Amino acid sequence: MAEYSVYELLNKKRRGGPLETREIEFFIDGFTRGSILDYQMSALLMAIAINGMTADEMATLTQAMLRSGEQWHLRDSYDFIADKHSTGGVGDKVSLVLSPWVAACGVQIGMLSGRGLGHTGGTLDKLEAIPRFNARLSRDEFERCVADAGCVISTSTEGIAPADKKIYALRDVTGTVESLPLITASIMSKKLAMGASSLILDVKTGSGAFMRIYQDSKALAQSLIAAAAGSGTKVEALITDMDRPLGVAAGNANEIIETIECLKGNGPADVMEVTRAQAERVLVMSRRFDEASANRALEEAISTGAALEQCRKWIAAQGGDPAVVDDYTLLPQPHAVLEVKAPQSGFITAMDTYHAGMFTVDLGAGRKKADDVIDYAAGVQFDRKTGDEVRAGDVIARIELGHRPHHPEELRARYLSFITFGDEQPAERPLVHEHLT
Amino acid sequence: MAEYSVYELLNKKRRGGPLETREIEFFIDGFTRGSILDYQMSALLMAIAINGMTADEMATLTQAMLRSGEQWHLRDSYDFIADKHSTGGVGDKVSLVLSPWVAACGVQIGMLSGRGLGHTGGTLDKLEAIPRFNARLSRDEFERCVADAGCVISTSTEGIAPADKKIYALRDVTGTVESLPLITASIMSKKLAMGASSLILDVKTGSGAFMRIYQDSKALAQSLIAAAAGSGTKVEALITDMDRPLGVAAGNANEIIETIECLKGNGPADVMEVTRAQAERVLVMSRRFDEASANRALEEAISTGAALEQCRKWIAAQGGDPAVVDDYTLLPQPHAVLEVKAPQSGFITAMDTYHAGMFTVDLGAGRKKADDVIDYAAGVQFDRKTGDEVRAGDVIARIELGHRPHHPEELRARYLSFITFGDEQPAERPLVHEHLT
Repeated sequence: MAEYSVYELLNKKRRGGPLETREIEFFIDGFTRGSILDYQMSALLMAIAINGMTADEMATLTQAMLRSGEQWHLRDSYDFIADKHSTGGVGDKVSLVLSPWVAACGVQIGMLSGRGLGHTGGTLDKLEAIPRFNARLSRDEFERCVADAGCVISTSTEGIAPADKKIYALRDVTGTVESLPLITASIMSKKLAMGASSLILDVKTGSGAFMRIYQDSKALAQSLIAAAAGSGTKVEALITDMDRPLGVAAGNANEIIETIECLKGNGPADVMEVTRAQAERVLVMSRRFDEASANRALEEAISTGAALEQCRKWIAAQGGDPAVVDDYTLLPQPHAVLEVKAPQSGFITAMDTYHAGMFTVDLGAGRKKADDVIDYAAGVQFDRKTGDEVRAGDVIARIELGHRPHHPEELRARYLSFITFGDEQPAERPLVHEHLT
Repeated sequence: MAEYSVYELLNKKRRGGPLETREIEFFIDGFTRGSILDYQMSALLMAIAINGMTADEMATLTQAMLRSGEQWHLRDSYDFIADKHSTGGVGDKVSLVLSPWVAACGVQIGMLSGRGLGHTGGTLDKLEAIPRFNARLSRDEFERCVADAGCVISTSTEGIAPADKKIYALRDVTGTVESLPLITASIMSKKLAMGASSLILDVKTGSGAFMRIYQDSKALAQSLIAAAAGSGTKVEALITDMDRPLGVAAGNANEIIETIECLKGNGPADVMEVTRAQAERVLVMSRRFDEASANRALEEAISTGAALEQCRKWIAAQGGDPAVVDDYTLLPQPHAVLEVKAPQSGFITAMDTYHAGMFTVDLGAGRKKADDVIDYAAGVQFDRKTGDEVRAGDVIARIELGHRPHHPEELRARYLSFITFGDEQPAERPLVHEHLT
């Protein structure tokens, strides 16, 4: 690889000029191998965070980061294998419902997923609420699971995008987390390193989303799609609503129960609608379905019990106890449940979903620091949500308590602090805002 | 000192928001003591280099950097003591001529100066061409020299502005050298740490200056003046021309000779004009002179030989051999002199002074890296400069060769590569462009 002057590249990016493909590759390669030092990379990260990147630079950065480690090229080993990513939210169990659902329709799907940090839950944490479920698979185990159950969700291995791990650790301590090109490259380098045939992106928007403002969410979706240009993985995005929690349950064990209820045909309407929209795209992107046949197949997979049976196979394939599907008492149980009642009659006009998520974290369901321990039984049931009419005294939520000490009145007061009541029903907000390709 | 989150301060500066006084102090103090790490400081430096700083932030940064080390408060020990700083150029021996000249008029002056790096020469390097001249004085030696000779030029001590040394080393490798607030704080933290009564700034402009564009030079001058607000040191600036070399000689020993010739009344008109303009301001700032009496005193100091005598005292006070004033053969001598002749008749219409400086450096007169060794005898005599009419075959320059191997024809060709000839005399450019207070 040609040698460049780190100093000159930093000067160039400071002045706002775009970096060439080989310049970006030189920087990422040098940083991964240790010849470019933390203080030089942090200067570059700050320059990118302030001056931005062109679409070409962003795609190059993504490619350079993914090439820093293993590339699985899964699309070369299967007729078709799907992937899915969510930017994260509160009560977001879409990956859990979608995976066995599309597998039941004959479309294989595999995800390298993350753990929860901050207000958003983590898909792997939820799965680990299932006794003996193994979310740390080797690549061989990952592929065996696809073969046995049609779907798999595992943690990213050490070998995937090591540059991203090093860069993320530095962004976290240098004030460069909020940056569209850096967020894009971080997400897409990991996804494209797996190399599925297709990737459906669920980009959340609203008070519980990483990007709260609609235009920011849309810009992120467009940026993620652009970064995959030329990668060989077909990428589409749906912008979906996270201005209220998704579904009723937020936590870990309780979201597994809600997932199974969805697969049994008893899930909350919002979870079903958001999941169906994405599952339809997964099926259509496989080219084995058009929209009409995809929807018919998805309906049948639920009504015949095929999706639920696929879920049992999946749990078993990852070492978990499939009996949880029929016996929820096998999951961690809350020590107590606190009811929260409406203090007035009227409508719930808003839920600050970020604070709803942080409330759940503080119950023990999530992490503030990477080494915090999860309490799988803790969580919240949002029985009444934005738009619902309530009478004073109605139960609007149930707080499921784990092992953490608590003061019931403080918890209830804190819950009510992020709920807004009013006399008029708020305008209905769509669940699926936009489809981008 | 209050504790702040480094992460939040970096986020704030990334978004362009001004930092509070105590936030800047916290950052500089933490970095100097080692609790804030290189990769965090380099992210801040890049954010400052891109987003800039307000005048208040810049003054605070300067103060925080100067307070990281010793403060000499010289103005408290003397009735009046002057200081002078140049942003650097080619053939710039103004400090050397000015110091004994104003001292001969009864105004004491002391400077903590730097060595040459890149295309600009270093005042200390030139002085060290004098046998046994000691440019590394302790504070006591510095003050003894002021008492004995009325003037002194020494290297900055270890104790002065250690934050600047650490920050400069980091800027040098992170592409954050070109930044008005960082340049300002670096220069002024060292100058204000000495704490003279007055400081005259010689801000150069043109092809051989650090800031080539006039408006950039003016912005730097204004920024340097603003950063001294409230410091107790009275600061003025002159913007002077560096679009051609200053004087005839560029090098080290040859600039000492030109300096002595100036003090003898035989100096080049441009060196005399630029130095007189600054010397006049030094005298007027002392309040012992008005402009008219300052100019009379300066004329007399040359015509009576008082300035030359002051120069002998000064050289002796810093341990050098004062006999060089009367016998230039005591200085390092070039091994050979190469003449460069005009290839055509007409006018010299431009000299790329940056390249003239780098040419001099490559002869051995300067440094590309901080540990390069100076060849004091090497240099150039610019016999004909911009605006001069020449006939084909006239000697326009003499290259004074030191120990480095060379190819005469290559050197001549390179010399001519930065000289432009034309048929029309170029418009005359003033030597002193503007006076700012």
